[in-house]
Amino acid sequence: MTRASGLRAALDPASIAIIGASDNPHKVGGRPILYMKRYGYRGAIYPINPARAEVQGLKAYPDLASLPQAPELAIVAVSGEEAVGAVAACAARGVKVCVVMSSGFGEIGAAGRALQERMLAAARDAGMRLVGPNCQGLANFATGAVANFSTVFNEMEGRDGPVAIVSQSGACSQAIYALARARGLDVRHVHATGNEADVTVADLAAEIVAEEGVRLVLLYLEAIADPERLAAAAEAARARDLPIVAVKAGRTESGRRAASSHTGALASEDRVVDAFFERHAIWRVDDPYALVAAGRLYLEGWRPRGKRFVALSNSGASCVMAADAADEFGLPLADFPPAAREQLAAVLPAFATAANPLDVTGALLSNSLLFANALPVLAAEVESDLMLVALPVAGAGYDVAGFARDFAAYARNTGRAVALAAPQEAVRAEFEKAGLPAFVREREAMLALKQLAEHSALMRRTHRASGPSKASELPKTKSKFLDEAQSLALLAAAGLPVVEHRLCRSEDEARAAFAALGPKVVVKACSASVPHKTELGLVRVGLNSEEEVIRAFRDFKPKIPAADGVLVARHAAGRRELALGARIDSSFGPVVLVGDGGIYLEALKDFRLLLPPFSEREALDALAQLRIAPLLAGARGQPALDIGAFATMAVRLGDAMLGWNGGVASFDVNPVMVFGEGGGALAVDALAEAY
Amino acid sequence: MTRASGLRAALDPASIAIIGASDNPHKVGGRPILYMKRYGYRGAIYPINPARAEVQGLKAYPDLASLPQAPELAIVAVSGEEAVGAVAACAARGVKVCVVMSSGFGEIGAAGRALQERMLAAARDAGMRLVGPNCQGLANFATGAVANFSTVFNEMEGRDGPVAIVSQSGACSQAIYALARARGLDVRHVHATGNEADVTVADLAAEIVAEEGVRLVLLYLEAIADPERLAAAAEAARARDLPIVAVKAGRTESGRRAASSHTGALASEDRVVDAFFERHAIWRVDDPYALVAAGRLYLEGWRPRGKRFVALSNSGASCVMAADAADEFGLPLADFPPAAREQLAAVLPAFATAANPLDVTGALLSNSLLFANALPVLAAEVESDLMLVALPVAGAGYDVAGFARDFAAYARNTGRAVALAAPQEAVRAEFEKAGLPAFVREREAMLALKQLAEHSALMRRTHRASGPSKASELPKTKSKFLDEAQSLALLAAAGLPVVEHRLCRSEDEARAAFAALGPKVVVKACSASVPHKTELGLVRVGLNSEEEVIRAFRDFKPKIPAADGVLVARHAAGRRELALGARIDSSFGPVVLVGDGGIYLEALKDFRLLLPPFSEREALDALAQLRIAPLLAGARGQPALDIGAFATMAVRLGDAMLGWNGGVASFDVNPVMVFGEGGGALAVDALAEAY
Repeated sequence: MTRASGLRAALDPASIAIIGASDNPHKVGGRPILYMKRYGYRGAIYPINPARAEVQGLKAYPDLASLPQAPELAIVAVSGEEAVGAVAACAARGVKVCVVMSSGFGEIGAAGRALQERMLAAARDAGMRLVGPNCQGLANFATGAVANFSTVFNEMEGRDGPVAIVSQSGACSQAIYALARARGLDVRHVHATGNEADVTVADLAAEIVAEEGVRLVLLYLEAIADPERLAAAAEAARARDLPIVAVKAGRTESGRRAASSHTGALASEDRVVDAFFERHAIWRVDDPYALVAAGRLYLEGWRPRGKRFVALSNSGASCVMAADAADEFGLPLADFPPAAREQLAAVLPAFATAANPLDVTGALLSNSLLFANALPVLAAEVESDLMLVALPVAGAGYDVAGFARDFAAYARNTGRAVALAAPQEAVRAEFEKAGLPAFVREREAMLALKQLAEHSALMRRTHRASGPSKASELPKTKSKFLDEAQSLALLAAAGLPVVEHRLCRSEDEARAAFAALGPKVVVKACSASVPHKTELGLVRVGLNSEEEVIRAFRDFKPKIPAADGVLVARHAAGRRELALGARIDSSFGPVVLVGDGGIYLEALKDFRLLLPPFSEREALDALAQLRIAPLLAGARGQPALDIGAFATMAVRLGDAMLGWNGGVASFDVNPVMVFGEGGGALAVDALAEAY
Repeated sequence: MTRASGLRAALDPASIAIIGASDNPHKVGGRPILYMKRYGYRGAIYPINPARAEVQGLKAYPDLASLPQAPELAIVAVSGEEAVGAVAACAARGVKVCVVMSSGFGEIGAAGRALQERMLAAARDAGMRLVGPNCQGLANFATGAVANFSTVFNEMEGRDGPVAIVSQSGACSQAIYALARARGLDVRHVHATGNEADVTVADLAAEIVAEEGVRLVLLYLEAIADPERLAAAAEAARARDLPIVAVKAGRTESGRRAASSHTGALASEDRVVDAFFERHAIWRVDDPYALVAAGRLYLEGWRPRGKRFVALSNSGASCVMAADAADEFGLPLADFPPAAREQLAAVLPAFATAANPLDVTGALLSNSLLFANALPVLAAEVESDLMLVALPVAGAGYDVAGFARDFAAYARNTGRAVALAAPQEAVRAEFEKAGLPAFVREREAMLALKQLAEHSALMRRTHRASGPSKASELPKTKSKFLDEAQSLALLAAAGLPVVEHRLCRSEDEARAAFAALGPKVVVKACSASVPHKTELGLVRVGLNSEEEVIRAFRDFKPKIPAADGVLVARHAAGRRELALGARIDSSFGPVVLVGDGGIYLEALKDFRLLLPPFSEREALDALAQLRIAPLLAGARGQPALDIGAFATMAVRLGDAMLGWNGGVASFDVNPVMVFGEGGGALAVDALAEAY
């Protein structure tokens, strides 16, 4: 994955050949020429068409060999075997990047896959990069290098700007582009990678994040074939405060089925993708619309350090709904201290309430300065990060342009994020003219503000350096699983507290164990051949006599291989059982699970995933997002649980997974018994699966 | 609440006087005249202004007494004491409905409230209905009777249509109107009720639902002062298949605080509102935008009987995202049987997959008949209710008008609901022209389809007739609570199974109880003076010897009044503890709670509320919406729980609350022990609070 990308020529080629160039500007082989002329491409354009002397007014060439020079980029708009031949010819001629628009390859089944493989082999042999096949291609509106046949550039004029769109799907790249332009966002890059035989969304993203003029990157993905490359792109972006927002489709079972018939992509468990995106500060959304929704907020350069929220409106109803939504979305209403309330009362109508959300009332119609007078008070006296302006009523008699200027000045002076919500287009247009983001809907404006704040926090988050690089010692095992004693020993060696226990091979040892660990113990069969003991009745809990212990020993021993023993463990009565686990994801590597424990982990799915190495803070953040979070903090007057101790265990298990270097395929630590605050936490059950 | 409404004159007055009429058409007293002239009001308009002979070209009158007749409706646009005087004069003159636009009343505090009270008293004495004060007024675009000063009718032309908007908030009425018009919905009624001294949103809704031309009612409420009236309006609407969609703001703590400073409304616990709306088939949404989002789907008259979903697109990515969203939203993908797959394969490109969602592929550009050919197959061979058409790509070369006609024909022929999603406005416009609802966003279109289907199901649902009207016998009590034995006896009398138990006042009785109910029992102090026994250590569980029982008896007896006893109950080891409860809500009357049981009910809030009388089916539906629902169905290979038995208990508790006729303020039955399927359920703890 550390190959030299050779992709600069994909974004900024000095010359472009079109193999299968068409005189019809609305055919696949014609559109790129139309667009390059329209959007001012300054490099050489070489239409290749053996049947014509001229194509769209440009000199045409019969073949690559006749060109005065090797083009840096070549578009292949011929199909089937002919396309395979064209790619081979490009490779031979020294083309740097080949964009294969033709379809009929990997996406149609085995025969197409074979063609695609041959194409790729030719490119690889020559060190040429291959975009596609079955792709709409690359478009750069900074240079006019539009090696792309998307219809949408004919419908909505391209205009260079700070946004880059990279999408596996061509149709989706057009939808994102159309929505971005409709919101007044100017877009430099629109790339669609299609079958991704070679070049992926991540490859192009990695190239683009280095461009200074790009200030927002939007991605659409169905598979993440090269997570390391995407991670590297994301970290480079983060290093220069460049936000990346992404759709990763195929979230659900049905979605994955649809994706596999669309691109043949095989998907990881979706929450691993969440964990991966979170770790690399990529903000995940659900659709193209959501990709662009917060665009203007990012581009203003606002990076709020908190989520303290203020709303202003000339409608009490909007204030009520904003307060509802603030609670629902977890945006704390900024406190108005007495000085603020006093000063606001002085500038507002007598019947207005100086509270947050702030209803300046319908008096705004007769007094256009209400916002202008209130805003300096909010700037000086109220600590906040995010502001919503809701104007459900405006029109004749309202100085909307003045309001827009007032709020723009507030945003400029405070550096705080401001968004407008108004149902009337003319009102939104005035605010946008003043440089402020505008939404139809209060809730949507608030969600964009929330996204901005939470994404900014993610982008600021520093990560722990990678864990130990040397592989830790692992016990030899011939079976798929380690037995519980081995599993617990591994955990203990990794620094996780485990329940006190003894492995007993004789009744005498069992007696001694009871004497040492009683008065109350758990007895379990301990054998790598019986990983799921509970289901087989090979676990007995709450035993409080030597007699019961020996009876369990005698019952269990014959049911396991002679070399294996029986484990006697101290009874641990904590406050709640949580689940801890880890496994190797085939795409993303080690993943750690923290969640509500016990037998309902799978049914209720109240868990979060983390990619190691992560910090205690990150583990605690993940726990705070569980549905049972209120219980962890101590419900019904009970003291809080010692989730700090649990978080430490999660961190160490993650580090250990890295240290084992793939030697452990999965590790279930369910339950971990968690005690009250200060009481710690203890692994009471453990099952490691060897690779 | 059964007053004759007298509100016909509010909606369709034969004559209108404006007290405080202004020659300036953009003042409060001028706008209604401007609008009535513009929108063709045919009744008599009487401007009243002692200072002018003419107002906006109409003859003006010095006072009400000078009018040739008593106006049916009078607008009051003068303020303070003058407004109070005007209302009194209207009452004396025989006006039927008085619309007080002036503010400075209930909303500004005690002094204003006193003025409002005087105003109301004058109206009530004369049998005159009062709209407002502090309201934007009433607008009827069928008759041009626009007794309303909203700015928005100046910004966006009024046009009679099938939609009615009734809103407490004037600003909100304008926002809803603007959003509806922007979606091409024509609106007949726009009413804003302001302070609601007399006439409420529910009053006007009740009047409006009787109008045949109205086919969709949109409400905005901050308080529900008269739930019975709203319920009656909703049931009348349901009887004629007229959907009502509503925002009830003040959902959360912050929202309620904001609402109380906005309208002085005191709010019920929000989930009671959910239960009330659900019972009366009012669909609840969060904001004005969502109020209008599904509007066109309702107006098409579609009332799907299921949620089986089909998606079609020319983009594989849209298909993936639609499949994701279908899973997320609970819309089952309609099955394509072999015959359908075969016939689809015959009309689609060879590389397309005949699956749902159906990707007709980019070949749509070259073959405009792909949809036309596929749709008859879907109509004939696929059982479905809802269809999404996603067109992220279109423009030059695409026969969008043809596609729109094809889908309109499908909708017409099948009666199934169809919605388009397309990022480009021109595409949406073509579909709307063909009579199909169009959205920017697939997810939004799908949520509208889902709402349509679920709301249709709610509207179809028949309810059980009311419970017994005769009050049941209640035990006498001087304390706030009944003791547990009394509480259990009440439950048993209401037909709920309760745990076998005995109330013991002597050690002998306790011994006999253990002998009868052992080998394992629970012992609790049983006293109305100790309703919360657990916290005081007056409960012991799992006792399995006479000795332990007697020890508990001896420990507990001295801690309660001498007349009270100790309860010995059989140990009930069911599969899960659920919570059942009931209380009288001050607005909505009896409410029943079903939820996850145990001590975490409050912390995790995994419960639903129901308004009795309700059916087992409704109780089961409520349980199916709990987060723990997967456990009820039997997780980890365990058999399902007997939630049917639990649902029956809930139904009976609801009926009993009705029967007790307010005599029981609240009833906690937490936990109810629920056994495996067929095993029933049992109240093991009960606490009734007397009124």
